[in-house]
Amino acid sequence: MTMEAERTLPAEELTRLGELAAQLRVDSIRCSTRAGSGHPTSSLSAADLLAVLISRHLRYDWADPHGRANDHLIFSKGHASPLLYAVFKAAGVISDEELVETYRQFGSPLQGHPTPVLPWVDVATGSLGQGLPAGVGIALAGRYLDHLPFHVWALCGDSEMAEGSIWEALDKASHYGLHNLTAIVDVNRFGQRGPTELEWDLDTYRRRVEAFGCQALVIDGHDLAAIDEALGRARQATGPTVVLARTVKGKGVPEVENKPGWHGKPLEPELAERAVQALGGVRQIRVTAPRPEPAPPAPTVTGQPPELPRYDKGTKVATRNAYGDALRALGSRPDVVALDGEVSDSTRADKFGEAYPDRFFEMFISEQQMVAAAVGLQVRGYRPFASTFAAFLSRAYDFIRMAGVSRADIALSGSHAGVEIGADGPSQMGLEDLAAMRAVQGSTVLYPSDAVSCAALVAGMVDRKGVNYLRTTRGKYPVLYDNGDAFPVGGSKLLRGGDDDQVALIGAGVTVHNCLAAADQLAGEGINARVIDLYSVKPVDRQRLLDAVRGTGGRLVVVEDHHPEGGLGSAVLESLADLAEPVRVAHLAVRELPTSGTSTELMDQAGIGVSAIVAAARAALASSR
Amino acid sequence: MTMEAERTLPAEELTRLGELAAQLRVDSIRCSTRAGSGHPTSSLSAADLLAVLISRHLRYDWADPHGRANDHLIFSKGHASPLLYAVFKAAGVISDEELVETYRQFGSPLQGHPTPVLPWVDVATGSLGQGLPAGVGIALAGRYLDHLPFHVWALCGDSEMAEGSIWEALDKASHYGLHNLTAIVDVNRFGQRGPTELEWDLDTYRRRVEAFGCQALVIDGHDLAAIDEALGRARQATGPTVVLARTVKGKGVPEVENKPGWHGKPLEPELAERAVQALGGVRQIRVTAPRPEPAPPAPTVTGQPPELPRYDKGTKVATRNAYGDALRALGSRPDVVALDGEVSDSTRADKFGEAYPDRFFEMFISEQQMVAAAVGLQVRGYRPFASTFAAFLSRAYDFIRMAGVSRADIALSGSHAGVEIGADGPSQMGLEDLAAMRAVQGSTVLYPSDAVSCAALVAGMVDRKGVNYLRTTRGKYPVLYDNGDAFPVGGSKLLRGGDDDQVALIGAGVTVHNCLAAADQLAGEGINARVIDLYSVKPVDRQRLLDAVRGTGGRLVVVEDHHPEGGLGSAVLESLADLAEPVRVAHLAVRELPTSGTSTELMDQAGIGVSAIVAAARAALASSR
Repeated sequence: MTMEAERTLPAEELTRLGELAAQLRVDSIRCSTRAGSGHPTSSLSAADLLAVLISRHLRYDWADPHGRANDHLIFSKGHASPLLYAVFKAAGVISDEELVETYRQFGSPLQGHPTPVLPWVDVATGSLGQGLPAGVGIALAGRYLDHLPFHVWALCGDSEMAEGSIWEALDKASHYGLHNLTAIVDVNRFGQRGPTELEWDLDTYRRRVEAFGCQALVIDGHDLAAIDEALGRARQATGPTVVLARTVKGKGVPEVENKPGWHGKPLEPELAERAVQALGGVRQIRVTAPRPEPAPPAPTVTGQPPELPRYDKGTKVATRNAYGDALRALGSRPDVVALDGEVSDSTRADKFGEAYPDRFFEMFISEQQMVAAAVGLQVRGYRPFASTFAAFLSRAYDFIRMAGVSRADIALSGSHAGVEIGADGPSQMGLEDLAAMRAVQGSTVLYPSDAVSCAALVAGMVDRKGVNYLRTTRGKYPVLYDNGDAFPVGGSKLLRGGDDDQVALIGAGVTVHNCLAAADQLAGEGINARVIDLYSVKPVDRQRLLDAVRGTGGRLVVVEDHHPEGGLGSAVLESLADLAEPVRVAHLAVRELPTSGTSTELMDQAGIGVSAIVAAARAALASSR
Repeated sequence: MTMEAERTLPAEELTRLGELAAQLRVDSIRCSTRAGSGHPTSSLSAADLLAVLISRHLRYDWADPHGRANDHLIFSKGHASPLLYAVFKAAGVISDEELVETYRQFGSPLQGHPTPVLPWVDVATGSLGQGLPAGVGIALAGRYLDHLPFHVWALCGDSEMAEGSIWEALDKASHYGLHNLTAIVDVNRFGQRGPTELEWDLDTYRRRVEAFGCQALVIDGHDLAAIDEALGRARQATGPTVVLARTVKGKGVPEVENKPGWHGKPLEPELAERAVQALGGVRQIRVTAPRPEPAPPAPTVTGQPPELPRYDKGTKVATRNAYGDALRALGSRPDVVALDGEVSDSTRADKFGEAYPDRFFEMFISEQQMVAAAVGLQVRGYRPFASTFAAFLSRAYDFIRMAGVSRADIALSGSHAGVEIGADGPSQMGLEDLAAMRAVQGSTVLYPSDAVSCAALVAGMVDRKGVNYLRTTRGKYPVLYDNGDAFPVGGSKLLRGGDDDQVALIGAGVTVHNCLAAADQLAGEGINARVIDLYSVKPVDRQRLLDAVRGTGGRLVVVEDHHPEGGLGSAVLESLADLAEPVRVAHLAVRELPTSGTSTELMDQAGIGVSAIVAAARAALASSR
């Protein structure tokens, strides 16, 4: 079953590699024992794999971690961070002292799981099944955009092979012919609380991998020559490769080898000391990785600023259409790329895809892989825009969360938000996306009401840091703004209002139109209502809200096409939480499970339509008179 | 490649089935054309499959949709709702008029995508890749709990085969030997905006399915005899079966057959009329499904109320331990089942697993499938508790969202929440779970501070409707309450307070302990601080908050181990939004990306530790003097 090494390495080289592997083991033990936590046994199983990889296959200039020609090394099994950091020591980029004294300590970049705080780490891992999918994105960039011969190496655990996202990744790797991607699976047979589902059934892994269109190489993960041969074949392959390495968890420390109950546990100091001695003691071997071939410098992004689409005030345009128009306009920048989850004719990302097919990646119905690919593409300096229905971005929420931990710069567009979508029913309605996206670390959340502001905000996302989310609407609504108006992130627009406003109606997206209609109706009753378009949901325009409080005696009506928790209403309330003067917020949101119907029927049913806003404004005035 | 039918059906039966298939097609066309939206072509491709299934294989008493012996029919491709509702008409449970006149109309249960508003629908679908995973849960119940011979039939689209969740489902189906589960894949070659990834490459599908341990039967999905034979073989199989049916999208209407651009589009009235005539016109065939064998009545849940674990006040116990203890205690009820994502020694679901191995399902690292299985188990009347790290429940967010749409009654436990977890770092810290879970329709969110309240809340979840989420803490903290104290959902606890409180400190979970320590320190400074344990985050105890506002002059400090958006702070603010009197809330939350460290270091760094609470209380008093 297992591939035998056809040629062996010179004895001297085998000795050198064995010494390096021993060092990686020793250092993995030392740092985790010192920290009192961590995953040494998950590191020991993969030490031989890494010793060969970093000595002979990983083409990496350790002095220039952001060099364009470098290979990429991703620890998809992020809990093996002791091994990764031991690699960094062997590469000479961190000191032995830093490794052993600061691992997992407060203030150290050597965190429990790797994050890009370290310049040699591309993406944060530790949520299993995410490193390989991100690697797919990096490999897409290498093959289709950079046209550079770098290779992406992802070390996977066997437990994470149970995550569907791994199979999405292998499927896309084969679909896109990613010969520059290799997954190395450390099949050590044990998960956290016992044996894995397939244990050492390498043959089943092999059949699955092959059925998903990848080359499978089954090896003994402790046979240095076999590892070397497999990694060499992987680099030469015409498609993606999965090296299935049969390994022993805890390898090198007989007391813990292949034993349950040792996941995520450091060796006690006495056992650690004994193990280090048995492994030959502490070493200071410095590895010299093969240098990458020099790459041409990155093309500089030049040219005119993109010319945004223009719309006539009053005409009806769906913001999802404006998203597509603006994205196509941004395509004049060669670093802008787009991805979609097989609904680009709905999200209107197809406009970009038609104009720039070489920079459009169809990810089919695999939202997790779509977001992961976006994260991988931004590792290579691209500005990815990924789109699907707002509801279906929830499928990738863990990936979006981890993109926040990675400090990845990505743009996401969720279309078909809220009950406004109508007849398709609740399964297709994004009604929790504002809450979920706002809660992501470092995120930006935008929700334009018209085509002009949508286009401007799409342009505003292109160079913005972190996870940027844009919510768009299915239906067509009138253009409210003049072409060229500014829509800064963190801003808002005052659509109606003066010095004698009695109540403020605050909406975003589709509810802005309901607020405008309500203000008209209220004006007919002699009630002056201010209308605010709070298109920037995070960060929110606190000054505008303060002005509204002071200008209306604290009477606010907030209206959102979203569940009442965590969305626009919460954004307003959080912003005003510490205010001294009284504020009374009437909060209109979707409180019951919606059904099918027309947009108007459903907004009225939910109590976010025009008549509900009018009633809330009247009630606000009545109760405070 | 394709299986040939070895025996053919009598000509009369073939005619009957063909007529029924024509009726299903005609009705799919009529209702979607009348609605002006919907997915007729996705229905036409599967009409033959359904005609044979409901006539000859689905053992279902249509008059008793909740009968224990019934087979289960799940449209994993929920957008083919015209076909599903046409089946309901053929079964005689809805009228022709209801189908044609009300499909997708406001107020009709015949929504754009199926939901359990209809008694013949087990789970809401429409987010692709979820119906089959839910079917795994139903089949688990059938094989391991009910010990009944019902069969689960899931109709899948080919587009959704790109979702990793499908492969998680097939993996678990084979792992658990679910011979009572059949997926029927309608391989019609087209997704929404063009060809699918694999188009009609049935052989690749076959190899993937077989590698994942399932029987694959490749058939022509329009050959009635071949369908019949495949479904018969599926029911007799010793493991799970996937019928791979090569079909033609739009089959039966030459104008749209196998053509792109026809996804999700009704036929125009003129074309529809022509197609209906060509298909032989409107029929009123009534199908009689094979009756299921009578099943014994469900065992009644009897016995004593579970005896909850008891803890000594002041001893340190982790709430995750209390979760495990309480869950084990609830195990005295035979309808309680538990699932875990391969971390049961951390979530402490292992306590249940050890006591009740027959009712514990190890789902390995596949959180999506874990939640889907829980949804499936509750279809069969069980009370599932599913657990993993709070951070990793984000992996299943779309499934949790859809559980809300399904009105599924499930309990989820997320352990290792917040920066409190310490050295493992941000990838493992649930810091957006309160926001995400609160935003789910009909959800309950609980976050106990001690073991006694945790155990009581676990017991409180067991008969509670909807999606119930319990957040637990990694570390050990003192028991605060007396055994037997009541912790109703929607309640809270006043831990410190009197008639002359100057400020209220509001926490939940771990921050309650910080609030108590802060109150002690403030007392030493002569400041009376009220301390509230807001263990019920949704619904929240508004009366307690109103009392706090009135008792302290509106000075609140809310402290949460969570990002500032959408969590405890938002829950408090939303609850008080419409209050007339002034409220000033100092909101302490995790605002920056955390690192590794000790719990105390990280809570202090985030500004949710004792000294930050003391400072916020002092500032609240200073600013309002």
